[in-house]
Amino acid sequence: MGRKPLPLLPKIILIVGLLLLADPAAAAAHDPVAPVALQLTLVLTGALLAGFVATRLKQPAVMGELLFGVIVANLGLGFAVELRDSPAIDLLGRIGVLLLLFEVGLESSVRQLLRVGLSALLVATIGVATPLLLGWWVAAQLLPAGSSMFAPLFLGATLTATSVGITARVLQELGALDRPESRVILGAAVIDDVLGLMVLAVVAALVGAANAGESLAVGPIVLIIAKGLAFLAVSLALGVWATPWFFRWAARLRHPSTLLALGMGLCFGLAWAADAAGLAPLVGAFAAGLVLERAHSEPYRAQGERGLEELVHPIAQLFVPLFFVQIGLRTDLRALLQPGALGLSAALIAVAIVSKQACSLMVLQSKGPVDRLLVGFGMIPRGEVGLIFAGVGAGLHVAGQPVLGAAEYAAVVAMVLATTLLTPPLLQWRLRRLVRA
Amino acid sequence: MGRKPLPLLPKIILIVGLLLLADPAAAAAHDPVAPVALQLTLVLTGALLAGFVATRLKQPAVMGELLFGVIVANLGLGFAVELRDSPAIDLLGRIGVLLLLFEVGLESSVRQLLRVGLSALLVATIGVATPLLLGWWVAAQLLPAGSSMFAPLFLGATLTATSVGITARVLQELGALDRPESRVILGAAVIDDVLGLMVLAVVAALVGAANAGESLAVGPIVLIIAKGLAFLAVSLALGVWATPWFFRWAARLRHPSTLLALGMGLCFGLAWAADAAGLAPLVGAFAAGLVLERAHSEPYRAQGERGLEELVHPIAQLFVPLFFVQIGLRTDLRALLQPGALGLSAALIAVAIVSKQACSLMVLQSKGPVDRLLVGFGMIPRGEVGLIFAGVGAGLHVAGQPVLGAAEYAAVVAMVLATTLLTPPLLQWRLRRLVRA
Repeated sequence: MGRKPLPLLPKIILIVGLLLLADPAAAAAHDPVAPVALQLTLVLTGALLAGFVATRLKQPAVMGELLFGVIVANLGLGFAVELRDSPAIDLLGRIGVLLLLFEVGLESSVRQLLRVGLSALLVATIGVATPLLLGWWVAAQLLPAGSSMFAPLFLGATLTATSVGITARVLQELGALDRPESRVILGAAVIDDVLGLMVLAVVAALVGAANAGESLAVGPIVLIIAKGLAFLAVSLALGVWATPWFFRWAARLRHPSTLLALGMGLCFGLAWAADAAGLAPLVGAFAAGLVLERAHSEPYRAQGERGLEELVHPIAQLFVPLFFVQIGLRTDLRALLQPGALGLSAALIAVAIVSKQACSLMVLQSKGPVDRLLVGFGMIPRGEVGLIFAGVGAGLHVAGQPVLGAAEYAAVVAMVLATTLLTPPLLQWRLRRLVRA
Repeated sequence: MGRKPLPLLPKIILIVGLLLLADPAAAAAHDPVAPVALQLTLVLTGALLAGFVATRLKQPAVMGELLFGVIVANLGLGFAVELRDSPAIDLLGRIGVLLLLFEVGLESSVRQLLRVGLSALLVATIGVATPLLLGWWVAAQLLPAGSSMFAPLFLGATLTATSVGITARVLQELGALDRPESRVILGAAVIDDVLGLMVLAVVAALVGAANAGESLAVGPIVLIIAKGLAFLAVSLALGVWATPWFFRWAARLRHPSTLLALGMGLCFGLAWAADAAGLAPLVGAFAAGLVLERAHSEPYRAQGERGLEELVHPIAQLFVPLFFVQIGLRTDLRALLQPGALGLSAALIAVAIVSKQACSLMVLQSKGPVDRLLVGFGMIPRGEVGLIFAGVGAGLHVAGQPVLGAAEYAAVVAMVLATTLLTPPLLQWRLRRLVRA
């Protein structure tokens, strides 16, 4: 059927082309999903093509998706602006990163993570302290005399939080999620988030106190940190204790789509709860994936249904590229043309990379060999949290002066871009060497 | 691990509860995905529970999802209003109905649909003409003397277009998509959409001409209809001709996630194109599913990947319930308390059901037995298109008076609700008898 071209086809194409050109405004009421459908089509096919080119160049697909976004955004096309500012694609991308971390969480367990717990804790602590202090000091040397006294502190703070999305995606693509290094990185990223919360709370309180001319109040800071830690403790404890029997009990109802609805409900529910506790939603999605194990799917598999990992994978495949293309789309290369931005950004990039290598020294080797370089590379990417810090800094005013000026903000953007783009090839290079060895 | 309750758990829950209550405003910047995650959690678990209760009561799950929405909306909870008005859930539900029709399209082929083409054409034509004329006449008898002269015509027009979502979902749930009746219904629904477009164009042009005191212009109407038909012809012809070799060629690239990205790209791309041609986006999604057959997945299956149907199913499972819960949420039962609404809505409901039975008489029996009653039942549901007509009618003014008043609008809403809720049990009852016979 239809193996040879239909003779009518060229004529029909001509007619429909004329019709579509003729009078687009004459059409009936448009469905609001239509522009989103078009954007999805373009992002999905663009990401597929870019991912394919990247893998042919022996780079992870995510690298292609990021660069696709950067290139489209900086060509100055009107459609790129529409895509970048589309609330629908933004929302679907955010859902995508939740699904990615949920999926990554499904591939490991609380037990595996606890086994590397001390290493992860040390890596995270040093990995937050070193960039904060080193960035603070370097920025203090480089910034002109007229800058805000808080600017070096804010720049240091933008360097603290690891953006785990990129690393998780690369490790998943290369099938390396079950390596001990991956567990250290993922565990450290979760602790990182709690520590980043702490740094943001302290820095914001410092600026607030300076503005009000008051001394620093410790109470609210302690409360914020306690909330974050309590969320992690409760969600993991409750998840490990309650979900196995709940999933087994629900399987007895023999209702289709139960496993997917329960799994996604837990993922989205904990994402919301993490946000309510002041953490990033993706920490909640990761925690949800962590407590769900293959055993949760077993009663459903026994009924001939598919397991949760199999169900979640195509959903993640559809939405995850949207997130990475959007990161690329938001990258404005012209920001680097701000005076003073290039030097400062070079310094920030260097600090960002070097300082996270310090934390790899903290990996404990007691439970088998762990490649320190791979852990250090995995901690390099900075993402949204750094940009949020920079945004808060640009919005805060002390004595009528913004804490971060345009050049400083542009340098942070450049640092995020460079660390994001450097991580995939670095991780892949190190992993190839490890596998070959 | 974690099989017995942790002794610390009650304490931790108490502490976290106090912390969360203590100072929600003290938390750091919130991610915009967080409220959406909470809404998704509640809709997914609510739809799961309601679907389960419905199936236990021997009703299709979709019935439970609809009623869950109706009940939540009419309890007057603040959260229900937030859910109903959430642009995020609305968008995800609209994507859901595209995925549903895409999936339904995947389960049949252009060839199968053409085999029932004449039946479907006759069913659609009579199924649009009878409700239009009967509704027009009945409304003209019932409406008070002061009503707009166009009101009966508009009320008749709201009865024309079948809402294929409900029927498709029920037939899918009951595993009846491969029955000849299902093909007649689906084919007729596509043709229905073109005819509905025609009716809307004619009615809107009539009102516009009456307002301007001009005579009716035929040119624009012909153009609108030609665009709709041209979209169908081109997308099906091009799809059947071009996609098989394109999917085979792309499989040779051996890049992961190619099949899903191409399939979803075609689904969303044709949904956008259908909208641009003035048709409903779901017609485009259905056309995309229709041209893709199992053969498209074969080269990917041969490489050990999963087929398109398997990949799309969990994505649809996740998003489709959002659509049906939202239909329920939008149902305002209080609208029926408008004076004059109850009598008019009873009449509209009766016309809506009876008039679509007329079209089942047009089913040709030449190619094997087709149950007329099942086809008639499948054509009953009216949905969004009816509401759009009613909305256009309420917004149009002739000589300073709205074409449709509050009572007439409420009657249309009641008709949509009744036909939507009646269809699942009717279809199920008829299918059970047919299978048993």
